[in-house]
Amino acid sequence: MAGYVPGEQPGTDRVVKLNTNENPYRCSPAVDRAVQEALERGLQRYPNPMGEAFRQKASEVLGVPADWMMCGNGSDDLLTIVTRAAVGQGQLLRLPYPSYILYKTLAELQGARSEEVHFNHDWSLPATFGKSANDLRLVFLPNPNSPSGTVAPPEEVLDLAERLPCPLLVDEAYVDFAQRNCLDLVARCEKILVSRTLSKSYALAGLRFGYVVAQPHVIEHLVKVKDSYNCDALSIAAATAAIGDQVWLADNRAKILATRARLAESLGKLGFKVTPSEANFVWVTHPEQPVRPLFERLKQQGILVRYMDYPGWGDGLRISVGADEQIDVCLQRLAAMM
Amino acid sequence: MAGYVPGEQPGTDRVVKLNTNENPYRCSPAVDRAVQEALERGLQRYPNPMGEAFRQKASEVLGVPADWMMCGNGSDDLLTIVTRAAVGQGQLLRLPYPSYILYKTLAELQGARSEEVHFNHDWSLPATFGKSANDLRLVFLPNPNSPSGTVAPPEEVLDLAERLPCPLLVDEAYVDFAQRNCLDLVARCEKILVSRTLSKSYALAGLRFGYVVAQPHVIEHLVKVKDSYNCDALSIAAATAAIGDQVWLADNRAKILATRARLAESLGKLGFKVTPSEANFVWVTHPEQPVRPLFERLKQQGILVRYMDYPGWGDGLRISVGADEQIDVCLQRLAAMM
Repeated sequence: MAGYVPGEQPGTDRVVKLNTNENPYRCSPAVDRAVQEALERGLQRYPNPMGEAFRQKASEVLGVPADWMMCGNGSDDLLTIVTRAAVGQGQLLRLPYPSYILYKTLAELQGARSEEVHFNHDWSLPATFGKSANDLRLVFLPNPNSPSGTVAPPEEVLDLAERLPCPLLVDEAYVDFAQRNCLDLVARCEKILVSRTLSKSYALAGLRFGYVVAQPHVIEHLVKVKDSYNCDALSIAAATAAIGDQVWLADNRAKILATRARLAESLGKLGFKVTPSEANFVWVTHPEQPVRPLFERLKQQGILVRYMDYPGWGDGLRISVGADEQIDVCLQRLAAMM
Repeated sequence: MAGYVPGEQPGTDRVVKLNTNENPYRCSPAVDRAVQEALERGLQRYPNPMGEAFRQKASEVLGVPADWMMCGNGSDDLLTIVTRAAVGQGQLLRLPYPSYILYKTLAELQGARSEEVHFNHDWSLPATFGKSANDLRLVFLPNPNSPSGTVAPPEEVLDLAERLPCPLLVDEAYVDFAQRNCLDLVARCEKILVSRTLSKSYALAGLRFGYVVAQPHVIEHLVKVKDSYNCDALSIAAATAAIGDQVWLADNRAKILATRARLAESLGKLGFKVTPSEANFVWVTHPEQPVRPLFERLKQQGILVRYMDYPGWGDGLRISVGADEQIDVCLQRLAAMM
């Protein structure tokens, strides 16, 4: 097998990096202070195995009891844990297509099978996504989805989970940029798990911190699979401070959404077909010209966007919502090419 | 399955904590500066997926090429990755007994079988530890071992690896407190992998950082199994600074070894049978009296040591080498009980 290959991470600041959906802004200053305090307490002791400080703070912020949450070393860690807990060798994992390629890799690592169910062409989910199947053990639903930035409404997600014979993990990595989320569904259906990350909306991709919300008996089961100390003392302190600063989150979200609207509108004016996005990126195709050369010419000019080619579906560009000046440069260069 | 249960982590500083082999001293001050600098660079970007800065520095320090190393979120992450890469459902994983119970849990999580080979009563390895077996896919050897603190000499480890039909992971979590290590063997035998952690000898249990050394084609295979960004930007910076400060390491090691010698000698005078240790803990049994009540009475007095009862082998106390004043308190209380 090939393994999952993440987007490019060039070792320089001289590129305009719009390819891996990072937040262009610095995180809340509360994070810096919390890390400083954790350093002062010292690092020689093991961290709290459950990241209890984060769970308590997140519980207050989200209105979810602490024992309904498990922390992870980024949401990749959580997706790995859930896959290992639910899917055995030869069993089946379902994901929509096109979506996050990692889900398929996780199945391969388990020696499991995966089934990709194609989105409808308007990025809605076909009814087959909720069908039973032999040995189906886990379904992943990124919501908002990548690369499309589209959302399945909570009512539909609940209906889907009720029809499925297995857990449904709703990957809400981008949900803070959306209008609605599925957190409330967890209490209504034990099959629903919701995963979140602080990488995107809290501008902490460098920190590796996420959490999954599920009913307590599900969390207990997942805890047995995770590494004993999967989150470190600095990241627990940082994440606790970050989720505690909801004023920062609201301000950052407003900036990203304003830039996203401008980016989408400008790309439309350039002739792209723009998928309405509820995430911090925009997916575009072009009805008349191939987009791959655009990606390559942008890259030559130090502007990284993500080119995705999905066999049986088509290709497009996924452009992360950077800072206004980054988006301006990207748009100017694209305009000059078209 | 029950999952692995780590040693107790009380949420208070008022206990004398000698139960989880943490280093009692603060890490190198270079770590604090490096974390501070990483914070100043910002956390909004993904970290380098391979922890390249650490690999470069460790390469200089250890004399091992950078592409012979993979970083992990603590050595637990590395042990998990190696198990997932090597052992499929129903296949066999071997470990010595008594040793680190986690190895057995890792097999269970894979749906694999595990075979515990008993140490000889002098903690040497029996010849059967190197025998072939149907579907044997991985052998773990903690070296120094826990709870004994004993070491299999490198010549014996090489011979063992050459006889085995599968990879041998030498878990050197405690090796910086020993006389010799197995790092040089990796170049001599592609079946040998050596894992290390910064938790113990670099006083960074709170940080979660380890690395595994293996031949490059083995590393390439392991990289496919790890999460894309398994180490965060702060821990990579901290670990790089820590391994770069070998003066701190030598000084800390000298302190721990001096305290260990005093602890071992004093426990011997109290009538315990003390296993000669090359780690930062000491394993003791008592020829005449049960040790469990000693553990319990110490705990009542706020002194945590680890009581281990190994069915078919016997029980004992594993006492971490704390600071001198912690060891003094522990010894005084033990003396009063005996």
